[in-house]
Amino acid sequence: MSSITGKNVKLSVFGESHSEAIGCVIDGLPSGVSLDFDKIKKEMERRAPGRDSVSTPRKESDSFSIVSGVLDGVTTGAPLCMFIKNENIKSSDYNNIKNIPRPSHSDYTAFVKYGGNNDIRGGGHFSGRLTAPIVFAGAVAKQILEEKGIYIGAHIKQIGSVCDGTFDYNCISSELLDKISSEAFPLINSEKETEMREEIEKYKSEGDSIGGAVECAAIGVPAGFGANMFDTVEGRLSNILFSVPAVKGVEFGLGFGFSSSIGSEVNDGYEIKDGKVCLISNNNGGVLGGITSGAPIVLSVSVKPTPSISKPQKSVNLETLSNETLEIKGRHDPCIVPRAVPVIEAAVAIGLLDILSN
Amino acid sequence: MSSITGKNVKLSVFGESHSEAIGCVIDGLPSGVSLDFDKIKKEMERRAPGRDSVSTPRKESDSFSIVSGVLDGVTTGAPLCMFIKNENIKSSDYNNIKNIPRPSHSDYTAFVKYGGNNDIRGGGHFSGRLTAPIVFAGAVAKQILEEKGIYIGAHIKQIGSVCDGTFDYNCISSELLDKISSEAFPLINSEKETEMREEIEKYKSEGDSIGGAVECAAIGVPAGFGANMFDTVEGRLSNILFSVPAVKGVEFGLGFGFSSSIGSEVNDGYEIKDGKVCLISNNNGGVLGGITSGAPIVLSVSVKPTPSISKPQKSVNLETLSNETLEIKGRHDPCIVPRAVPVIEAAVAIGLLDILSN
Amino acid sequence: MSSITGKNVKLSVFGESHSEAIGCVIDGLPSGVSLDFDKIKKEMERRAPGRDSVSTPRKESDSFSIVSGVLDGVTTGAPLCMFIKNENIKSSDYNNIKNIPRPSHSDYTAFVKYGGNNDIRGGGHFSGRLTAPIVFAGAVAKQILEEKGIYIGAHIKQIGSVCDGTFDYNCISSELLDKISSEAFPLINSEKETEMREEIEKYKSEGDSIGGAVECAAIGVPAGFGANMFDTVEGRLSNILFSVPAVKGVEFGLGFGFSSSIGSEVNDGYEIKDGKVCLISNNNGGVLGGITSGAPIVLSVSVKPTPSISKPQKSVNLETLSNETLEIKGRHDPCIVPRAVPVIEAAVAIGLLDILSN
Amino acid sequence: MSSITGKNVKLSVFGESHSEAIGCVIDGLPSGVSLDFDKIKKEMERRAPGRDSVSTPRKESDSFSIVSGVLDGVTTGAPLCMFIKNENIKSSDYNNIKNIPRPSHSDYTAFVKYGGNNDIRGGGHFSGRLTAPIVFAGAVAKQILEEKGIYIGAHIKQIGSVCDGTFDYNCISSELLDKISSEAFPLINSEKETEMREEIEKYKSEGDSIGGAVECAAIGVPAGFGANMFDTVEGRLSNILFSVPAVKGVEFGLGFGFSSSIGSEVNDGYEIKDGKVCLISNNNGGVLGGITSGAPIVLSVSVKPTPSISKPQKSVNLETLSNETLEIKGRHDPCIVPRAVPVIEAAVAIGLLDILSN
Repeated sequence: MSSITGKNVKLSVFGESHSEAIGCVIDGLPSGVSLDFDKIKKEMERRAPGRDSVSTPRKESDSFSIVSGVLDGVTTGAPLCMFIKNENIKSSDYNNIKNIPRPSHSDYTAFVKYGGNNDIRGGGHFSGRLTAPIVFAGAVAKQILEEKGIYIGAHIKQIGSVCDGTFDYNCISSELLDKISSEAFPLINSEKETEMREEIEKYKSEGDSIGGAVECAAIGVPAGFGANMFDTVEGRLSNILFSVPAVKGVEFGLGFGFSSSIGSEVNDGYEIKDGKVCLISNNNGGVLGGITSGAPIVLSVSVKPTPSISKPQKSVNLETLSNETLEIKGRHDPCIVPRAVPVIEAAVAIGLLDILSN
Repeated sequence: MSSITGKNVKLSVFGESHSEAIGCVIDGLPSGVSLDFDKIKKEMERRAPGRDSVSTPRKESDSFSIVSGVLDGVTTGAPLCMFIKNENIKSSDYNNIKNIPRPSHSDYTAFVKYGGNNDIRGGGHFSGRLTAPIVFAGAVAKQILEEKGIYIGAHIKQIGSVCDGTFDYNCISSELLDKISSEAFPLINSEKETEMREEIEKYKSEGDSIGGAVECAAIGVPAGFGANMFDTVEGRLSNILFSVPAVKGVEFGLGFGFSSSIGSEVNDGYEIKDGKVCLISNNNGGVLGGITSGAPIVLSVSVKPTPSISKPQKSVNLETLSNETLEIKGRHDPCIVPRAVPVIEAAVAIGLLDILSN
Repeated sequence: MSSITGKNVKLSVFGESHSEAIGCVIDGLPSGVSLDFDKIKKEMERRAPGRDSVSTPRKESDSFSIVSGVLDGVTTGAPLCMFIKNENIKSSDYNNIKNIPRPSHSDYTAFVKYGGNNDIRGGGHFSGRLTAPIVFAGAVAKQILEEKGIYIGAHIKQIGSVCDGTFDYNCISSELLDKISSEAFPLINSEKETEMREEIEKYKSEGDSIGGAVECAAIGVPAGFGANMFDTVEGRLSNILFSVPAVKGVEFGLGFGFSSSIGSEVNDGYEIKDGKVCLISNNNGGVLGGITSGAPIVLSVSVKPTPSISKPQKSVNLETLSNETLEIKGRHDPCIVPRAVPVIEAAVAIGLLDILSN
Repeated sequence: MSSITGKNVKLSVFGESHSEAIGCVIDGLPSGVSLDFDKIKKEMERRAPGRDSVSTPRKESDSFSIVSGVLDGVTTGAPLCMFIKNENIKSSDYNNIKNIPRPSHSDYTAFVKYGGNNDIRGGGHFSGRLTAPIVFAGAVAKQILEEKGIYIGAHIKQIGSVCDGTFDYNCISSELLDKISSEAFPLINSEKETEMREEIEKYKSEGDSIGGAVECAAIGVPAGFGANMFDTVEGRLSNILFSVPAVKGVEFGLGFGFSSSIGSEVNDGYEIKDGKVCLISNNNGGVLGGITSGAPIVLSVSVKPTPSISKPQKSVNLETLSNETLEIKGRHDPCIVPRAVPVIEAAVAIGLLDILSN
């Protein structure tokens, strides 16, 4: 395992789905920052399950307590430790999968790596539940970034065959980011919600699941942060983004759209505006040569369909080495994309804070 | 700058396009490895410019010398330093861009970060030429990996509107990887070569450029390497892949294809084959929960069109803060994708060697 | 702050003297290790205050709970989080020092670094109490090392003018290390105890404090671990040892004794014993060229007198910038050396486990 | 091997005593720094052998060339690579030790770690010659630190039974540091030179060697840098200091003198001077709680006697596993301490620059 990341602001995540608690330690935060815990709670609620008909009915209490690093609501500079007790645990739901790895989950690879000693209940340390501490750390990072005029927001870009639009370079405001960040089903074109929900319901009713994509933007990041070659903004952010379960692709700006693009059409020219150097377009997503350009950082991630489906699947018994048919019971998200949105925002916030801290 | 990467096997890259030399230091290599320098030379030649009608006619001498770390052709365990003298330098070609940043290059962001002190000639440390040391390090890594039965190969997946096929899970052999790695224009379906070359020639004749994508596979990687959460195989490889200039997206397995996929269709089931656990499909590209599954690691990167085009582009003068029209002279690749193939292979080899070293 | 250390086995320490709790996260432990919690408790008790007439009468409940990473007493491979609730807190004791830095404590430097936001109560994150999680982590590391045949033990080498002997190269056994590790006042020559206690009582009665030194040995470490140049065993261990409050010097083998030594007398020759290469002497303390030699690792640290004394001391008011005379009240150790012994053992265990893990 | 160090300013050292060249890469230097290469040359000459009757008569050409990272004498921000060709190599001198490890050298431990593949000639990568790149990097670091008002200097504290004085807290000026740094035999009390030289000559004439100690000071370091717990100034500096061959102990301020000290006598009180907080004494050597106090950083290292002596020594043949008597021929320093002085300064400069860079 390495559940520790960061160079200047370090994040250590601990806990398992069915352990006593989950939480995190954030080391290297600036001292003297007043934290708004109500705002942090709201971020946590965006991720928590059981709030929406298209998410799992499983309720998780994500109420957290601050163990250290904060005095009278202000950061002390010491490591900030946060703690969430695990409750509402149904261990019996997972009994039938002890030795039968769920397809496209980490069960098999964890079994090989940890020799069968890892806690299989609820996915253990690989559980999507471990994104709660990430959202917490992201909410803290966001508040520090907002003091520097940096705002982050994300929306559902795609669910199955239904697509939202993408961020328009000339129209990304803190208001827009704030607006989408406050919605349970964040979209740029909110009229797409019905169609997307129908897409999800369709696969839910079949005991199946559906994938999607999330687009995230950060505005207000000054030019000149990050570095060539191995400390690129793209590389550092993608390292954290791939820690989010189900993320299987990361692209910046046009990303894979560049593959069929022509230089003269997608090169981002410059112009002088109000005496300042400005980018005319932002196909590179705010990063050039690994360094921020001052334009919004725009990135997308692909999110695979929830691996847990109730349809029968082909698996094996790792002990007897025989073929098995697996039917996963329990309460699962037919589409994890809406709940992934705040996690992606958090991952970007954590990464950016670290990049800007040096 | 941070041109040093790696945890156990560390790579330090140095040099600028017009400095006395470029090169690298590889620290943490196993001792006692016999290196085949002819094979390394061949890898270097795959990347070198001027070998093909669709690449820049500019010739670069990539002949390298080993400075330290090798005795009688065998690694000593001490840092391996490699050195390539810079020759055939035409500094005058770049005089007109001193203060006028080339669109979609790193000129502007480097100017901001380094206060105008960075060496602008040929792109300085940001030059694509710096991929030569990466290919060298990758060639060394490949030889060490091959001793462990791990083989890596990549092909052109797409150029503009023309697509090659993708790796077929059941048919990736060391012979196939070896075959495509030996070609100047590596494709799975070689009959696509003419069409792709025509696509490139078309934009070349217009003084324009075209983007594409590269797909890379590594076979023979045992299950159980990598880790959840922040040391995922995806995160560590993508951190190196984004150090390759022009790469703007990285995806594993189906990657962004997951966004429109259904769980029951893309979940990778298991079966017992010859008494061993096998994956029935490999849509996750050989990585589950950040850990290798034993199936081939399959990833793709998007490559943006070469930013250097001869068509007039909008830019600014960073000193006078006035608008400018820039026409880039010099010898540039109309499509960098074919030459990016060995660099992507090298980046994957470097990353995998580091992951497997712990 | 950076309260995270380690390359392969990472330790993250959190908490402040008066925060809700203190604890640690250990990331990268091998899975499948059965932990003996009674043994860990005994290690914790060795460090805990209030057990001996020469230590502070302040009692600290060091009873810990395991939050994650252990299932049925066996490590899962996931981050192991440990938690100690803070009790018996007397905040009023520290009220008079809010703006008056205690000499030779971290109060002033912490004030400068954290702008007065750090938690001053009980020393905050700088408190000696934070050595409890280090002892815990060390106890876990010791158990893993013992499975590999590696044993660690330390003794009081010096208190003021009274010296114990030093480890004899030919007579360091696991029995000896076990014996001294089980004593409240660990000495090689136990007849020195009375004299040393008298030394401490003398300064205690004067409201003063006295310094000392601790010597630590690790036996069973195979040759060939560690590395030249910046990953030396000496450098990696000393980095952790200097995290122990009051440690101001670290030396290996003869250490500063080398300064007045002659090569022919202190060079460690070799001989063949039972068909194996053996060192005839061990003046280098088990490390040559930064790499373990197979001989016991032997090191000493100097421990400064407890800065908290009840005698009046010259200080200043950081707010009013006026001179002050400070008299520290509260319950303090007149000599921290006996309680430092298990902490030094723990630091060495943590460092060695990390070094051996790669 | 890990010959790479640093968090923000990274140093990668390469080369072996008899490889084509030795050198280093410094990554993360600020851009825009004008380097005075004459000053750097002078630093290099201080370390170079063959300049003094008490050092080895072996001459090494330490003339270096700048490979990259500097344009018109100014740092570009790209990795600075420096290169020293190896000349005057007498490989035959080392033939008789191929399989017979020299006592107290790294020969045996390197043999175990690298399976006999390491380059034994001249000590390979373990050679004291590799301190040349460290002195180079230190000279660069010193210039950057001097721009911030930070000056570093060291002197011979002890050779065998002869001691120089120590830095007096109230009298460390840049003039003093400059003066001692310009001397071949740097002392605070220059009248000790004759006695010390006699001590060295005595052991030289016997074919033996003698140890010593070096004290180093850095003035002008502002309060508030470094950190508790694992990023202490002491820990970070000692990690680099232990990379200097022959260093076996590191202490800060009183260091091991604390072991016999009384709190009331060595605690560093505070007073207001010219409206500023000042330390009345500096027994803690400029570091409290791992953080700089604003007082001079003062540290000492012990240097063991040169292991290479011409007297017969007991060793073994690693191939035949038989006992051997070894007589080392060649040209060696009877006392390495005078030549270690600039290396210790350099190590401190490199470490401080990195600490101050974040």
